[in-house]
Formats: sequence, C-alpha cells, structure tokens
Amino acid sequence: MTLTMRAIEVQDDQSLKIVELARPEPKGAEVLIKVEAFGINRGDLLQRVGMYPSPKGASPLMGLEACGVVEAVGPAADRWKVGDKVCALLPGGGYASYAVADAGSCLPLPDGLSFEQGASLTETMMTVWTNVFDVCDLQPGETFLVHGGTSGIGVSAIQMARQHGCKVLTTAGTPEKCVAAETFGAHRAINYKSEDFVAIAKEVGGVDVILDMVGGDYVSKNIDCLNRKGRMVNIAYMSGSKVEVNLMPVMLKRLTITGSTLRARTPEEKRQVRDGLEGEFWHMVSADKINPVVYKVFEMEEIEQAHALMKSSEHIGKIVVKT
Amino acid sequence: MTLTMRAIEVQDDQSLKIVELARPEPKGAEVLIKVEAFGINRGDLLQRVGMYPSPKGASPLMGLEACGVVEAVGPAADRWKVGDKVCALLPGGGYASYAVADAGSCLPLPDGLSFEQGASLTETMMTVWTNVFDVCDLQPGETFLVHGGTSGIGVSAIQMARQHGCKVLTTAGTPEKCVAAETFGAHRAINYKSEDFVAIAKEVGGVDVILDMVGGDYVSKNIDCLNRKGRMVNIAYMSGSKVEVNLMPVMLKRLTITGSTLRARTPEEKRQVRDGLEGEFWHMVSADKINPVVYKVFEMEEIEQAHALMKSSEHIGKIVVKT
Repeated sequence: MTLTMRAIEVQDDQSLKIVELARPEPKGAEVLIKVEAFGINRGDLLQRVGMYPSPKGASPLMGLEACGVVEAVGPAADRWKVGDKVCALLPGGGYASYAVADAGSCLPLPDGLSFEQGASLTETMMTVWTNVFDVCDLQPGETFLVHGGTSGIGVSAIQMARQHGCKVLTTAGTPEKCVAAETFGAHRAINYKSEDFVAIAKEVGGVDVILDMVGGDYVSKNIDCLNRKGRMVNIAYMSGSKVEVNLMPVMLKRLTITGSTLRARTPEEKRQVRDGLEGEFWHMVSADKINPVVYKVFEMEEIEQAHALMKSSEHIGKIVVKT
Repeated sequence: MTLTMRAIEVQDDQSLKIVELARPEPKGAEVLIKVEAFGINRGDLLQRVGMYPSPKGASPLMGLEACGVVEAVGPAADRWKVGDKVCALLPGGGYASYAVADAGSCLPLPDGLSFEQGASLTETMMTVWTNVFDVCDLQPGETFLVHGGTSGIGVSAIQMARQHGCKVLTTAGTPEKCVAAETFGAHRAINYKSEDFVAIAKEVGGVDVILDMVGGDYVSKNIDCLNRKGRMVNIAYMSGSKVEVNLMPVMLKRLTITGSTLRARTPEEKRQVRDGLEGEFWHMVSADKINPVVYKVFEMEEIEQAHALMKSSEHIGKIVVKT
C-alpha cells in the first residue's frame, strides 16, 4: 500500500491542479514532514512558468519552505524525532501535505508561533542571514539598505538588521508600505516613486551594506550610495541583470559586488546557514524581538489567488498556504 | 641653513625637470630616507598629466616607492634607526634623493639585494598581497589568473601565487613575454593576441581568483571564466571602467567583484598591509624564492626614457631609477 498526499502540480498549460501523489520517503539525512502550512516565494512564480526548475534530485513540485510535524526520519538524519514541530527550507516540494527536508535545513518551530507563522520565516531569514550577515558581514553601527521593504525578504531583513544594532533604510512603492516598513523597524522608508533613494541615503551618511533584488538601473544607484568598503549583494535581478555600469567607484571606494542563491546550495552548505541563523537570530523570534509578518493565509484550493496576490505585489509581508 | 635634495618635478607644460628642493623633514611616525633608487609605476604617468594627484598631505612629487638608507626618524616612528636599509611604499615623493615614509610603510631591504632591486618590490608586492591574498583570500590549490604577466604587478603576482601553492595562469602580448612569464613561475602564459584566455582558463578547470588591471571587455570575460565562489579584483581599468555586463553569473556562481587602490589608504591601513606581506612573503625574497625582476635601471637624467619605456609596455618586470 502506497501512502499518498495532496499536492499542487503544474500542468502542461501552466495551470495548477491539486492531485494525489505518492508520499515521499525520507532517505539518508532527510526527515518527512507532515506539512501544515507552506510559504509562497517569488521563485515559485518563475518555477511555474518553467524558468526556475527544482535542482536535480529534489521534488519537482514548487515550494521552498514548509512548516509542520516530523512524521518519520531517515536513517542518517540527526537531531529530529517524530512529533517535532519544524520549519524547513526545501529545494522544492513544499506545495504538498507531506515533504522531505534535509535534517540540516530544519529549525524548531519557535514557541508560541502557529504553523502558518512558522511557514513564513525560514526562506527569508536564511536568505538574509547568509547574504547580509555572513557574506556581507554587516556590523552593528553600520547603515543597511534593503530594497522592497515590505516583501518577505524586506520584512525579515529590516527586523534582523535592526536587532543587530544597525541603522536601517529601505524602499517601498506606496506611502502605506513605507509606514509599514517603519513599523517593522526601518529608521527611514523611502518611497521610490516620489523620492530619490540615492540622495536620501547620502544625506544620512551613505550605506555600508545593500541587499538588492532589483538590479537594472539600481546597480549604479546602489554603487553611488555605498560608502568606502561598502558591500552590495543581489539575490535577484527583477529589473534585469544586463547592466551598464561604471566600475571605477568599485576600485576607488573598495566596494564588494556579490550575489547568491540559496536553492542550488548543497545540504551541507544549507546546514551551515541554518546553524548561523539559529545561533544568531532564531531565538529572537520566540523572544518577540523578530516577528513573523503573515499578510494572508490561503487554503490549497485558493492557490491561484495566492499566486495572483504575489504577482500584484500588493501584500505586505508573507503569503502563506495551509494544507 | 636648509638642506636640499635633487628631485624630478613636473613643469606646467608636463615636461620633467631636475630641480633642487628643500629636503622634507620626518614628522610624527615618518622616517627620512636617503633614496638610492626608486621604482617607476604606471600611476606616475597619470600623475604627470594631472590625472592622479598625490593625496592631501603627501609630497606633490611623483614616486610611489623608494629604496635607500634611513637618515633620520620622526619622534613617533617605531622600529627603524638611522642607517637601516629600507624599501618604502610612498604616497608620493619618490622621484627625489630624499623622501619621507611612514614607518609602517617600510620593510627591511632583503639580504643580498641591491638598492635597485629593493626599489622594484614594495609597490607590487604590497598591492598583490592586499588584493589577492587579503581581500580575495587566495588559497593553496586554487587557480589564479593575473593579466599582464610581465608587468611589475604580474611578475610579483605570479611568483607569490606560485609560492602559495596555486595553479597560476597569466596573459601577455608577445611570445617572448609568455616565455618570460612561465620562467617566473606561471603554469600557463596565454598570448592574448593569438589565444582565447577564457577558453584556455575553462579547459584547465576555471579560475578562482583574478587580478585584473584591464577592465573594459575583460570584465565579462573574467566573469565567464570564474568558478563558483570566484573572486575578481581590479587595481586599474586600463581599457575603461564603464562596461556592459550581465551580472546574472555573479548571483548564480556567487562571485565577488571588488577592487582597490593602495595610495589613498591611511598609514594605519598601509601598516597592516606591510605586516601581512612581511609575515607571509617578504622573507621569501632573501631566500631566493621570490626574485626581483628589474628590466632596466636609468639615471635620474634619463627619466624621460624611463617613462617612454613604461609607456611602450616593452619592458618585462620593473623599471627603476637610481638617484
């Protein structure tokens, strides 16, 4: 008897359908999670249209993060036991009622959080930790700029940098989003439609680290507002990655331009990110210092609405689906 | 009575003239060096035409490195005493028979070296150390590419990376220069006029660290041959710093694009570079593991010929002037 699960599958015409599939089995260092909720990420929209496939060996389903209860553990999985509530980073497969995750990609669901809240944290907090705190080595007292301050990434980045003792700038596209971003802890949210973020960043003394997902003409603008020894890291290029740029300031100001993705990393690399995040920031969630921001929770049957909301960029914080 | 010195001054019409000037006095942590020889650097040519002025507070004369004997020490200068033979990095002022240097920018003249040889090492070895070994953290076993393998920088970079246990690739513009670069220790010197350095770099497994002074279309080519987690550092953009580049590989391969200059740094920063270089590589010079490569020594009266040779790029190694 094969155990089954409900899953959201992309059909040939790119429509989505809830189907019944065989439940995955936890191999090696994997755990099987009974998924109670999963987070929606912008990458899911790309994967749906064939532009961001799951890495080799991973579930072909969408879904980069899930929250639920450990149902079974693989023979080489450390730490977790059946019944543990976990938040998991996934290479794919989150859009289902069961998913396998590497034991090193899981974190304990923080005390007091619902599964829906737990499903909103893992991908963004890991992404922010590895890019901003590990690669760019953001230091207390430095000034940090994250674009898209009300995106899932923005909400996590603002709170983490603020807790780290940094001055936090961010950009957003409406007055309401700017207010929200400042509520999350940004010292100054800049409405990029009506204000010049470069001028404002310079007015406050320039920026030391930038987390960017925009690319395009933001590359030169970011370079312009970076201080000496400033660092910029890209986790996407939503306005394009082909840019015209004058690199002279990179040399004269000794800047670092870098970028990364999380999904393609090895389980061992993800474990290091998990450990770093857990050691420095994860405990701040149950301590109420970093708060999940769930904009809306959908049912699996409402997945089209969830994707439409993500596409609209009207949300503030994370979009979550419960199974 | 004011003590004087001979110095090479840039005239209003950009011609050079040997003049008699007041000898500088060592203030604070400076030492006064009786200069026996000084190295020519490409930056000198820029300074001569007004494009690379001395930083504030430094001698307005050209000259980024000198070798000679300590003649006097400032009240706060550590380590050095009158009579010590030193190699000094200078913010300017090397084109003279006396120069002041911060005590932290001086290294002992390695045993067995002439002043002319000593004048050929400091600027390039400090530049290579800070960019390649400190910033880019080149590791033993990694593959390193330096462009311009027979330039002063190239000659130092090849030898230092080779001593560090790296696979060393370089580029040069003639068969003779390629032979020379391989003599200095490059595993493979690529004639960029007849060969495709990107294809060759990929054939040998890609490159982990690139030291570039070319810029222009080399930026995209360098990015193309970098391995995952590869690093590129620019110390000049001789073919231009305004480039069209696709940054997607920066994110997908998690590359680091950076750059720096040495001249603008604080004395304290230069002291850290001096200490790093001295701890790791400087002893290799007296041990015959890293050799000065002096292409030609000129008299001060021949400074025009020295500059013309630098401009021609026909030299292999360093051009030095004795006072």
